[in-house]
Amino acid sequence: MTHPDEELAGFPVRVEIPVQWGEMDAYDHVNNVVFFRYFESARVEYLERCGFNDSYREQRVGAILHSTSCRFRRALVYPDRVTVGARVTEMEEDRFSMEYRAVSHEQEEVAAEGEGVVVSFDYEAGDKTPIPEAVRSGVRELETGDRRRRNE
Amino acid sequence: MTHPDEELAGFPVRVEIPVQWGEMDAYDHVNNVVFFRYFESARVEYLERCGFNDSYREQRVGAILHSTSCRFRRALVYPDRVTVGARVTEMEEDRFSMEYRAVSHEQEEVAAEGEGVVVSFDYEAGDKTPIPEAVRSGVRELETGDRRRRNE
Amino acid sequence: MTHPDEELAGFPVRVEIPVQWGEMDAYDHVNNVVFFRYFESARVEYLERCGFNDSYREQRVGAILHSTSCRFRRALVYPDRVTVGARVTEMEEDRFSMEYRAVSHEQEEVAAEGEGVVVSFDYEAGDKTPIPEAVRSGVRELETGDRRRRNE
Amino acid sequence: MTHPDEELAGFPVRVEIPVQWGEMDAYDHVNNVVFFRYFESARVEYLERCGFNDSYREQRVGAILHSTSCRFRRALVYPDRVTVGARVTEMEEDRFSMEYRAVSHEQEEVAAEGEGVVVSFDYEAGDKTPIPEAVRSGVRELETGDRRRRNE
Repeated sequence: MTHPDEELAGFPVRVEIPVQWGEMDAYDHVNNVVFFRYFESARVEYLERCGFNDSYREQRVGAILHSTSCRFRRALVYPDRVTVGARVTEMEEDRFSMEYRAVSHEQEEVAAEGEGVVVSFDYEAGDKTPIPEAVRSGVRELETGDRRRRNE
Repeated sequence: MTHPDEELAGFPVRVEIPVQWGEMDAYDHVNNVVFFRYFESARVEYLERCGFNDSYREQRVGAILHSTSCRFRRALVYPDRVTVGARVTEMEEDRFSMEYRAVSHEQEEVAAEGEGVVVSFDYEAGDKTPIPEAVRSGVRELETGDRRRRNE
Repeated sequence: MTHPDEELAGFPVRVEIPVQWGEMDAYDHVNNVVFFRYFESARVEYLERCGFNDSYREQRVGAILHSTSCRFRRALVYPDRVTVGARVTEMEEDRFSMEYRAVSHEQEEVAAEGEGVVVSFDYEAGDKTPIPEAVRSGVRELETGDRRRRNE
Repeated sequence: MTHPDEELAGFPVRVEIPVQWGEMDAYDHVNNVVFFRYFESARVEYLERCGFNDSYREQRVGAILHSTSCRFRRALVYPDRVTVGARVTEMEEDRFSMEYRAVSHEQEEVAAEGEGVVVSFDYEAGDKTPIPEAVRSGVRELETGDRRRRNE
């Protein structure tokens, strides 16, 4: 049993979300679908901080979700809070791979882990396009900054 | 016990929706929030058919939800289907009042009834505005057509 | 413009919820349905604190939602946080009336106000029943405690 | 462009779901999270038909979702309907692997494909357990019956 932050070492972006009672289903735990909402919230925060949302607002080159997955590790029940981490694990020319991790505050354990592939998309041209340079730097900064913090 | 259509006499617009298992909450019945999604689906279909969506696409004068309510009558459980009716009960210069009714196919009874007030909104000007004439006619036609059908 | 707590004077129970990006709909603001989830979260916290959840666990006498409504005042957009207050405004033998209020932190204004009627229900007998005495005291304590705090 | 049923050859279980307007997000297409709700609805229907729900009701041995994923192929917009297929592709002692496929009626194309691993769980013992024999037969019957139909 550890503090959420320990479970999330290496995840530069984190959002904290209270579990809502109505997110539980007839099995009395948080429904599987809700974890993808949690991951999305961490992803959106990451896209904001690495500059992908700016890129979309300025040049219509934004991120599009190609695929995503979740491995459920522990049932989550209300009341609880989760901290959800997001990080980029691999960057290619027109896409990057992300990892998500949701940690339960009550259980002090990982509730779920996931992955996602985000593609750089030119909404004007309607086609994928290389990741803008500013976004590449943004990602590198987030990921290295975090590595630096971990080494301190 | 009656056929859904009998419970919905007087509702010119109806949508049929399968209850999804994941819409049930920890009390093992469809969560209260979901009924507002059902009502919304019937409202959107009504707005399409009375011409309010055209009006939004053509002149940026669309509908905005001012308020809504629901009276829960019977617990809904999966598997089931609901038919949800929508009608306009009163039309003022810049708004109209709607009624919604969700009928369970399994129970052949009304599961919930609701109301909503929809305001005519000029999205360019950012303010409410009189209901476009084409929409007023559309509403009258839907409501009278239905009355006519009932009298046949 | 005021601090959320000022807008919520008189509401003894409050929950704070981050707006999630995915709660916005095609109109680029938080979907109407989501406000009922917010209200539910405040209601569940109230039911916990007034003893209704204990009563359900111990004697199967719990709360059931009879009806609810929402008046939308301001569009809510991500990123934002809401504080949602709940209070009981009237208590009858077998039910009480609640008010909900959701305040936007970004706008420092009320985003939505709602009401709900909660009925005391004997889940063994399958019928409504007087509100348990412990719950009545719990409600009175919450509501008076809050009044006292306001007068200090 | 093909009929949904052609795209779903080999999927013995299919559910048809109307896309609801409120399932679209600020990008004006159905939010990624909603696809997992669609997959869940097909999975629940499969679990019903292969006997896993009976097994849960009778001996408390039911299915638990271990992991799931989705590959988004085409943006889905309201109005539309999806037919979602589910099939079992591999059965081990205590789990089986499923595939899901959601076909858009408007586009007559696959909107999304997914996978899931379902584990057999003894809810009394709180641990995984071999898949009950009746469920194994149920799965085989569904999958072979479908193969037979395809060969006719």
